[in-house]
Amino acid sequence: MEQEQKQSLNLLMFSGDYDKALAGLILANSAKEMDVDVTMFFSFWGLFLLRDPDKMDLEGKSAYEKMFEMMTPRGPEALPLSHMNYGGVGKSMLLEMMEAKDAPMLEDFLKGARKKKVKFYGCKLSLDIMGLTKDELIPEVEIVDAQTYLKDALSSNMQLFI
Amino acid sequence: MEQEQKQSLNLLMFSGDYDKALAGLILANSAKEMDVDVTMFFSFWGLFLLRDPDKMDLEGKSAYEKMFEMMTPRGPEALPLSHMNYGGVGKSMLLEMMEAKDAPMLEDFLKGARKKKVKFYGCKLSLDIMGLTKDELIPEVEIVDAQTYLKDALSSNMQLFI
Amino acid sequence: MEQEQKQSLNLLMFSGDYDKALAGLILANSAKEMDVDVTMFFSFWGLFLLRDPDKMDLEGKSAYEKMFEMMTPRGPEALPLSHMNYGGVGKSMLLEMMEAKDAPMLEDFLKGARKKKVKFYGCKLSLDIMGLTKDELIPEVEIVDAQTYLKDALSSNMQLFI
Repeated sequence: MEQEQKQSLNLLMFSGDYDKALAGLILANSAKEMDVDVTMFFSFWGLFLLRDPDKMDLEGKSAYEKMFEMMTPRGPEALPLSHMNYGGVGKSMLLEMMEAKDAPMLEDFLKGARKKKVKFYGCKLSLDIMGLTKDELIPEVEIVDAQTYLKDALSSNMQLFI
Repeated sequence: MEQEQKQSLNLLMFSGDYDKALAGLILANSAKEMDVDVTMFFSFWGLFLLRDPDKMDLEGKSAYEKMFEMMTPRGPEALPLSHMNYGGVGKSMLLEMMEAKDAPMLEDFLKGARKKKVKFYGCKLSLDIMGLTKDELIPEVEIVDAQTYLKDALSSNMQLFI
Repeated sequence: MEQEQKQSLNLLMFSGDYDKALAGLILANSAKEMDVDVTMFFSFWGLFLLRDPDKMDLEGKSAYEKMFEMMTPRGPEALPLSHMNYGGVGKSMLLEMMEAKDAPMLEDFLKGARKKKVKFYGCKLSLDIMGLTKDELIPEVEIVDAQTYLKDALSSNMQLFI
């Protein structure tokens, strides 16, 4: 019986930008509040959002991997804007404007998505190339390949590449 | 009777880039010409496309909001390219090449979309944070929240994040 | 009889970035391996991926078109990263990290997609504006308008704007 099948939203989070991560997480939280299933698949730069700022394991890593880990953003609040300087608007200005309106921060939306049981997928190939390990990410993340993502996405009502 | 139900396209216009706005509006116009329903939801930087260049209301705004309004693009032709300098190609060069081929400009595609009755949604949260008001945008825009966007998108045949 | 209808994936490749092209082509190859039909529609900067590095025809072109052709990337390996310098990570560093993991390069994924018979569409309007000709692209590309793209996309199970 397929009656009343839940709707589903699948987001491919490719970008490691603060503003795009915000857009993706606002949609994820809003969809969950509408009782829509949500899967977020994080690949490439998108994985930086899932890094636990307090966990960094440099042991056994190559020189490049160590450099990469130390140079790239760790966790939501460390992400840059998609435009370095959009019409003169920098990240600190955007954050001040959000604060003035009592808008939640990116990490609040991430916490909300975790609490609401959004399904978090991390891209295996991206992790391999970047030399990141599952232990350096938030614990909810399941590491999967592109085909697992595609299966979920193809059977969803809606897919976005963010 | 669900026979002959119209197809529908839903575009989330996140970016405030000239070239991406062009892509979105070309798709919107083409879809309308095929008798496909089109909704465009403008959020974040995407809202700059909908600003009426002749309407700016600084009254009652905070210092940040005033700065933001004056520094950011007003209307279609003021948008920058997605890459500041893509392989050496700047916006003026692109515009000259478009003109040489008698290709319509961005504001022509926006006029076309308005005339063809594309549904224009503006993101409430983005407007709040940026301190923009409905009166500063083109009159067709309806201000909605993320859930209204999601309802429309989930029931569309196709969704893109631009 | 609609039984066992194949699933289909439609990708609009707008960006001319190495990392985004990689993401799109990995998805295209993975989907084909799952017996999913794949169409990739290349428009704007995305067309640079399809340029044959050995074919450039400047004859009969305007000064702008010649400049454009010579300044912009020719073929997969010439594409830049989406962020010029993401947290300090440049393209050469990313390529070294990929090589260290024996990950295939972008041109390998493009070859795979061609071999697996991904359908390649090129955007007519973009080619016209840029002054590029079909002969300067890989031979599989079919030049189509936005409506041909939309027909394919609207009837696909999944669409992404990359």
